Amino acid sequence: MKIALAQINPTVGDFSGNAAKMVNFAAQARKAGCDLVVFPELATCGYPPGDLLERPDFVDANLDCLNALVDTIGDIGVVVGYVDRNPHNAGKRLFNALALFEGGRIRFRAFKRLLPTYDVFDEQRHFEPGQACELYTYQGVRLALTICEDAWNDPDIFASRIYADDPVERLAAQGADVLINISASPFHIGKRDFRLAMLARLARKYALPVVHVNQVGGNDSLVFDGTSAGFDATGGLVARARDFEEDLVVMDLRAPTAAPEAQRIHPVAPSDPDAVLAALVTGTRDYVHKCGFKQAVIGLSGGIDSALTAAVAARALGSANVATVFMPSAYTSADNYEDTAQLARNLGVAYRTMPIDTILAAFLEHLAPDFDPAAPGITEQNIQARIRGSLLMGLSNRSGALVLSTGNKSELAVGYCTLYGDMNGGLAVISDVPKTLVYEVAARFNTEQEVIPRRILEKAPSAELKPDQEDQDDLPDYAVLDAVLKGMVEEFKSAEALIAEGHDPQTVRDIFRRVALNEYKRHQAAPGIKVTSKAFGSGRRYPIAKRYRPPSQDHP
Amino acid sequence: MKIALAQINPTVGDFSGNAAKMVNFAAQARKAGCDLVVFPELATCGYPPGDLLERPDFVDANLDCLNALVDTIGDIGVVVGYVDRNPHNAGKRLFNALALFEGGRIRFRAFKRLLPTYDVFDEQRHFEPGQACELYTYQGVRLALTICEDAWNDPDIFASRIYADDPVERLAAQGADVLINISASPFHIGKRDFRLAMLARLARKYALPVVHVNQVGGNDSLVFDGTSAGFDATGGLVARARDFEEDLVVMDLRAPTAAPEAQRIHPVAPSDPDAVLAALVTGTRDYVHKCGFKQAVIGLSGGIDSALTAAVAARALGSANVATVFMPSAYTSADNYEDTAQLARNLGVAYRTMPIDTILAAFLEHLAPDFDPAAPGITEQNIQARIRGSLLMGLSNRSGALVLSTGNKSELAVGYCTLYGDMNGGLAVISDVPKTLVYEVAARFNTEQEVIPRRILEKAPSAELKPDQEDQDDLPDYAVLDAVLKGMVEEFKSAEALIAEGHDPQTVRDIFRRVALNEYKRHQAAPGIKVTSKAFGSGRRYPIAKRYRPPSQDHP
Repeated sequence: MKIALAQINPTVGDFSGNAAKMVNFAAQARKAGCDLVVFPELATCGYPPGDLLERPDFVDANLDCLNALVDTIGDIGVVVGYVDRNPHNAGKRLFNALALFEGGRIRFRAFKRLLPTYDVFDEQRHFEPGQACELYTYQGVRLALTICEDAWNDPDIFASRIYADDPVERLAAQGADVLINISASPFHIGKRDFRLAMLARLARKYALPVVHVNQVGGNDSLVFDGTSAGFDATGGLVARARDFEEDLVVMDLRAPTAAPEAQRIHPVAPSDPDAVLAALVTGTRDYVHKCGFKQAVIGLSGGIDSALTAAVAARALGSANVATVFMPSAYTSADNYEDTAQLARNLGVAYRTMPIDTILAAFLEHLAPDFDPAAPGITEQNIQARIRGSLLMGLSNRSGALVLSTGNKSELAVGYCTLYGDMNGGLAVISDVPKTLVYEVAARFNTEQEVIPRRILEKAPSAELKPDQEDQDDLPDYAVLDAVLKGMVEEFKSAEALIAEGHDPQTVRDIFRRVALNEYKRHQAAPGIKVTSKAFGSGRRYPIAKRYRPPSQDHP
Repeated sequence: MKIALAQINPTVGDFSGNAAKMVNFAAQARKAGCDLVVFPELATCGYPPGDLLERPDFVDANLDCLNALVDTIGDIGVVVGYVDRNPHNAGKRLFNALALFEGGRIRFRAFKRLLPTYDVFDEQRHFEPGQACELYTYQGVRLALTICEDAWNDPDIFASRIYADDPVERLAAQGADVLINISASPFHIGKRDFRLAMLARLARKYALPVVHVNQVGGNDSLVFDGTSAGFDATGGLVARARDFEEDLVVMDLRAPTAAPEAQRIHPVAPSDPDAVLAALVTGTRDYVHKCGFKQAVIGLSGGIDSALTAAVAARALGSANVATVFMPSAYTSADNYEDTAQLARNLGVAYRTMPIDTILAAFLEHLAPDFDPAAPGITEQNIQARIRGSLLMGLSNRSGALVLSTGNKSELAVGYCTLYGDMNGGLAVISDVPKTLVYEVAARFNTEQEVIPRRILEKAPSAELKPDQEDQDDLPDYAVLDAVLKGMVEEFKSAEALIAEGHDPQTVRDIFRRVALNEYKRHQAAPGIKVTSKAFGSGRRYPIAKRYRPPSQDHP
């Protein structure tokens, strides 16, 4: 049996667009001599649909989409993810479902049994877990058909398991010939390698070929890396789709390595910074386009964050679709006039200058009539950022371009950013990229020629909101800050644990305090592209009004 | 047995503050001759703790808090909600738990079996469902101890049930003498009456007295109304705590109506608008105080929304803690100079004027050098709102007062508001109040004397961002808009269904389009106080980048 791994990039709710993609990929698969074409999880409606699932008309449209596909694609077997209704009178009203259809009829249905409900996933919010766990024999091959998380509960891989059930084990025990897993598994650093190693291990453990078909593309904060893959019964990688792009690869179960390797194993990003860059480009392109925009506008400061954001945008949208604006004040250094202009020239993007001094003076007349330019307080600093944010939004209103904001994860964590100022924008491109990683990713643009001017990569970071300001006057060294933040945010460590690891106690406590204090800013932040295992945003839901006082020693 | 219903207002994460409240309430209960004092669900850490539950140090602090209570309150039985760890190696790591302790020892533990995971609730994200379902006999009385949702699955009450299990039925069948339910059940319009009727019905159905103890107070978007209640075995209401305030009432199981009714049945808001007003006041007070603020600042326009917001704030925080600012432009009518000043005088709050014209001129020099004041476009309109928003934030920076934003639910739904402009603020006080209800709630301030000037209640709503602008030029009549929004947002109806009900097709489609287009604004909105069954915010999770195109008729 020849199986096509059809790695598509659906748009949430675009039923006719998603169906057209599937019809097209099915035709390619048939042309390649395949017996079966496999699409990702929830391919009809795109993943994650969120609370659109609460709308009966949305679920109906998804069922109409499935039925239209069944009527249209008759000449090849098709496995596709969709939303089904739960006919029983108890439990959640929907299933996260899979159908296998052929010749105008649905031959088999399966319902996802393990429903991820953590981090960015909310599946128990909408879905009832499936109960059945049965093989389906198609053209003489016993298929173990599973959906994403169903394959993520092997006791040899996960020391602490979230679920008691292991659908893969149960299906393998029934004598499966191949394990097929349709998926919508988003990217974060390290996830792709973990996923491929896990699937190879399942193949070896059960001596079964494995076919994994992942969604690709960006949907809001999530970027799905694709990297769909096939493994032979020894765990050897025999087919792999590209990452961050639509792709189709074929796996022949009878002769998995017969075709030339270059046809079967497609190239993927060779390093973590490369993968992060690809995720940012894909996430930006898809967010802008799926929101119905074509162009973006970005404020350039002369710093590394806005430089990386602009470079990502130019690659994602095309230079002709990116406009930049430099908004200097009295605190802007001479270098930044040159560096921003040079960057814009290198990227081939539009560039204009809008000094903010007269607007600032008009604000200060009301807010700080006795303002001393040599020592701007927090009010005066924030107003500068808000003037720039308002100018960007004005340019957006006039041109129809989406504002991309430029803040990184380190500053968002500790609130070193201005709400309604530099946080303004429809998408925060690098808001899940820690500052130390910003440099690594930015360097990928300069491997062949100097795209980001070297001085931007080398200067000391500064907000330039008061004279001679440098980030490191207000923040710990970024290497220290990022290490503590990783421990706190990604690894859930306590302040005490991080101090015990050797970090300076005062620094650690100050970072914890600032992260907690700034929940309110992050609550109002634009969506950002998730690239780490724990991003601020929908996968991290902290209360704002809170106090974290441990019980006192003597009495409560 | 005499039971004290101890309705406390915990702060999330304030273990020592919450414990001190419980020690204090337990002393009151003992003084009133009670055998048992009952506290709400998760009373140690406050509800909802959100992803703080993912932090092992947070869970430890909650267990330390429980242990300190066990050591401190020895002279009365105590039922309290807390977070326990799941000792098993499969499943979520925590339980939503209840302990009964007395004399320095925990006598009984129960784990919540039904875990709400819908709307604002995320319990399956963190908790493993309890399995055991056992009575505990305390002082000869067989107690059926349940946690919130455990009592919300009666098949006579819920036609379509989310869960197969019914813990109340199972416990009643074992011969319970009383059903005790500890709870954190938030307010929305109609919920209190539904909840009380449901509890009365359970009492009648099983011929069992029922004791329900609810959390009270605001935590971020949620306001818990309290209204803890006791019912006799015929379903008669024999005890009820106040709504929206801490309170303690006593229910004597042997003689439930022996005490005078006024001691047992405390007053609650007499109507929906009264309850909404109380929810807004409590929600504002708790948000401001629990975030560590004392004062608020509000922009007054002369319209009803900012008037209601200011009146709520003055009641919640005290007039001395509220500052208002009027920011007129060339488009501001003369009436609004008078009306805002009169409102501020009536409320006894500080008032200042900051005209925005010079700042606007400075912006337009950059953005619209050929600006025509007679016909401001969207760019010029938004800039006005953003200048006001930035001035408010500047006043906040200078004074340390929290900005309260003033938008209502109707305009937030269709995006008739400016992001980074009038949406600026730490709390959006009335963002879940539809415009038609804004008038009803505002009228409650004028029952005894004219607090909100009558002209504010009577004038046509206007954003005053261009000459002679009125909301109804850009929006449907608010009565129509609110009816369609209720059908769409609260009742999940399709456009077709609302058209079939008699609404104008073009109006309905336009509202649906605008609601969908403006997800991005709401994503960046301040938290608002939930008063309807479906608020924008954490209980409604819609993707931003999406398209909703049904499959086409002919082929996909």
